[in-house]
Amino acid sequence: IKNSWVEFNDFAKKVLEMGRSDPRKVMFAIKMGLALSLTSLLIFWKGSYQDFAQYSIWAILTVIVMFEFSIGATFIKGFNRGLGTLCAGILAFCFAELSVVAGKFEEVVIVISIFLTGFCASYLKLYPTMKPYEYGFRVFVLTYCILMVAGNRTREYSQAVLTRLVLIAAGAGVTLVVNICIFPIWAGESLHKLVVKNFKDLATSLEGCVNGYLKCVEYERIPSKILTYQAADDPLYNCYRSVVQSTSEEDTLLGFATWEPPHGPYRHNYPWENFVKVSGAVKHCAFTVMALHGCILSEIQAPADRRHVFSNELQKVGSEGGKVLRELGSKLEKMEKLSPGDILKNVHEAAEQLQQKIDHKSYVLVNSEGWEIGGRPMELDLEDLINAAEDENMKLGSKSLSEAVLEVRSVSVGTAFGYDAKNTLRTWPSNVSANEGSVVKGDEFKTYESASALSLATFASLLIEFVARLGNVVSSFEELSLKANFKDPPIINMPTEPCKGVATRVV
Amino acid sequence: IKNSWVEFNDFAKKVLEMGRSDPRKVMFAIKMGLALSLTSLLIFWKGSYQDFAQYSIWAILTVIVMFEFSIGATFIKGFNRGLGTLCAGILAFCFAELSVVAGKFEEVVIVISIFLTGFCASYLKLYPTMKPYEYGFRVFVLTYCILMVAGNRTREYSQAVLTRLVLIAAGAGVTLVVNICIFPIWAGESLHKLVVKNFKDLATSLEGCVNGYLKCVEYERIPSKILTYQAADDPLYNCYRSVVQSTSEEDTLLGFATWEPPHGPYRHNYPWENFVKVSGAVKHCAFTVMALHGCILSEIQAPADRRHVFSNELQKVGSEGGKVLRELGSKLEKMEKLSPGDILKNVHEAAEQLQQKIDHKSYVLVNSEGWEIGGRPMELDLEDLINAAEDENMKLGSKSLSEAVLEVRSVSVGTAFGYDAKNTLRTWPSNVSANEGSVVKGDEFKTYESASALSLATFASLLIEFVARLGNVVSSFEELSLKANFKDPPIINMPTEPCKGVATRVV
Repeated sequence: IKNSWVEFNDFAKKVLEMGRSDPRKVMFAIKMGLALSLTSLLIFWKGSYQDFAQYSIWAILTVIVMFEFSIGATFIKGFNRGLGTLCAGILAFCFAELSVVAGKFEEVVIVISIFLTGFCASYLKLYPTMKPYEYGFRVFVLTYCILMVAGNRTREYSQAVLTRLVLIAAGAGVTLVVNICIFPIWAGESLHKLVVKNFKDLATSLEGCVNGYLKCVEYERIPSKILTYQAADDPLYNCYRSVVQSTSEEDTLLGFATWEPPHGPYRHNYPWENFVKVSGAVKHCAFTVMALHGCILSEIQAPADRRHVFSNELQKVGSEGGKVLRELGSKLEKMEKLSPGDILKNVHEAAEQLQQKIDHKSYVLVNSEGWEIGGRPMELDLEDLINAAEDENMKLGSKSLSEAVLEVRSVSVGTAFGYDAKNTLRTWPSNVSANEGSVVKGDEFKTYESASALSLATFASLLIEFVARLGNVVSSFEELSLKANFKDPPIINMPTEPCKGVATRVV
Repeated sequence: IKNSWVEFNDFAKKVLEMGRSDPRKVMFAIKMGLALSLTSLLIFWKGSYQDFAQYSIWAILTVIVMFEFSIGATFIKGFNRGLGTLCAGILAFCFAELSVVAGKFEEVVIVISIFLTGFCASYLKLYPTMKPYEYGFRVFVLTYCILMVAGNRTREYSQAVLTRLVLIAAGAGVTLVVNICIFPIWAGESLHKLVVKNFKDLATSLEGCVNGYLKCVEYERIPSKILTYQAADDPLYNCYRSVVQSTSEEDTLLGFATWEPPHGPYRHNYPWENFVKVSGAVKHCAFTVMALHGCILSEIQAPADRRHVFSNELQKVGSEGGKVLRELGSKLEKMEKLSPGDILKNVHEAAEQLQQKIDHKSYVLVNSEGWEIGGRPMELDLEDLINAAEDENMKLGSKSLSEAVLEVRSVSVGTAFGYDAKNTLRTWPSNVSANEGSVVKGDEFKTYESASALSLATFASLLIEFVARLGNVVSSFEELSLKANFKDPPIINMPTEPCKGVATRVV
């Protein structure tokens, strides 16, 4: 008992914490209670229509069913409920007349009509485009049955229908007034925030990936949750996973948001679907970040020294890419258009530099020992390599061919790369070599050395691909900012006037 | 009018087509109609308890609410309904006593109690782990209100509660009997099929990607739907997208499947969550296929001639990888354990060959002209390159360095690669170069030539990463096959006895 008390206490704390972190939830619950108790006042109706008190439960039922977290969802439910009730009412009228005419077979007609109604509604609601109206079909069948039952007992079909319609309208009215007038929770706003969050999450993931890669972060053992794409503790992983997984939530919110009336900064016919498009473009980027993370997870790892050669350039592309994402995210948050000038300029420059570095140093990315055409004329000593990396301005490219060849002869071919390859060559291929006597161990070692260097090439080229996809994000953002009529960015003060309190140049 | 008639006709055809392609949907609708009409017979109850006829709507309501497509979902709804009703009944009893005691303030007590119930239930159902019970909370509030209303009118709280409980139980009973006994639709089976489908879809995508890449498929203009991750017509894209997007459907089905009783080949406590794990591992693979497709979508493309060099190896890895996925998929479908022997042997060998080819020919993947260390001593003529690719057995690797250098001197450095680079260098970097006067056009051209070759390296190394991730799929499949106690694979007839009709070796 003591244990379960502790558990309960724990649960209660978490529940209170939830309310503190998201006050909207508390407000929602209060609103729901308010709407319910307002409607329940109908029970005590003492006026001329005693039916209202007797059937007051229909108003309460409507409130319970219609009262949803967001305004848009409430509207959809209300629409479904209204349409379903109306259709069912009309149909019930027809079949009631028929059953009265049928005389002796009245009961048979009623049962068959219920079967047919149930069949048609259940079948149609499985049709893909009917999904948003699933609830409407349910209400339709329910109302139809209720009317047939009540009508059959009292023979007053029309009064039964009318009383219920009035009560349902009353319940719907209370729901709408309470839900919209008191602290409204808009699905559109949630969608807006979700897309902004996606930008920030992706930026975090990207920076985390690039930094982790350059710091040679390795997973001791990759959590099996990552390998089976489940939510895990890894923040880097969770950030991009939440971006990719947000699709269904976005679609739901989009469905609600299109039903919402204009409110706050969101005017009539707001281009909500463009928010989802922007978020889709962000996801398209997220997939490259995923692949970048894959390079960290991979068993075949590039040695630290080789990574170090491209360290500055990779770092720059990563941080500039993250900056662009954050900038776009905050522009979206503030609903501002892009500032004049190319937001991608810096990141393109960084990518360009990375490209050029690769072009100048692509020998680091491959292992020439096995070349069929006879190998590079020399193997670089690792020290040289790193020195070259450090000295950004060194331009050996202009050296003549003969000079280079001369210089090279003095370096022995045997030294090769001096790093410790143990970490990078793990378990994967061992079973292959065990089965295949023909592959000589030494060959294999070189093969994986080469593969490990190529993994650096992969990382770099995925990063460049990421930059290319950023362009796509920017253009879909621009489309959104035009359609949604975002405000112009404020004119930025010159950096020469850092003091904002002093009126600008007014003397 | 004519137009809408055509539209209606079209819709009707599609609706009928849906039934033909998935007869389960028709069966479901028939079952629903049947359950409804069975329950509606209660209306005509002429026995001693007239209340049954009057309140028969509660049984009908239960059927409408509980009757779900799959058995598991029906159980969950039923559980929610039962628990919600019971709790509400108990609470209503207590508050009813209280309100009677309160005398003059009865109505105030009732309204306040409704407010509190609504508040607590709405707040608690927003707690993340409470999501599956969302419906239960709704039923709870509803039942509570109904009982208070009915009790307040008739003063017979206990009878109101009991009649309703009996009717709800009757409705639930009819629902369960009809839904389980007639053509049951199991969520577990749907989950099983979905995971099998994921295997097949991914295999299709993988093969499509590799073939498309080798055939140098290029998108004239990439559909913006792909760039914003929406469903598009591209079959290759849709296959892997459906794999990645299946997460939420799987989670839903898993939630239902765990509620289902043992049935067919699925025994008690079946490890359904392992199906989701296997599917997660497949998704982890799907992300590399996604990245492979990214290489096709990318603006920077490797020239066809260079792709051709690795064509055989890439093709082999792709087709072997696809085979493994299909094999696993069909094993899962038949619920068989893996055959003895390493299912990954062939694909590992193929990956190994690709690795070695890369090792021997990695000069194809880089552009040495810009090397700071002075460049490769020669540029290969393209013809040579392709000849070398064709002649698989040619092992020049053993040639001595001096020989190679000698041979090389005769080839002029100027010839470089003769392919047409126009297609591969598209729009992206143009704005950068326009802004930056310092970058010489010629340099840039080389940079992108180098990048385009690197994109081939990326493709190859992603493919190898894919193979590595396959191991992960196999091990999660093995875990599943052990836990779920899959049957042993049938002993395969020797290929020397192709005729199955003849008893094996029985003379």
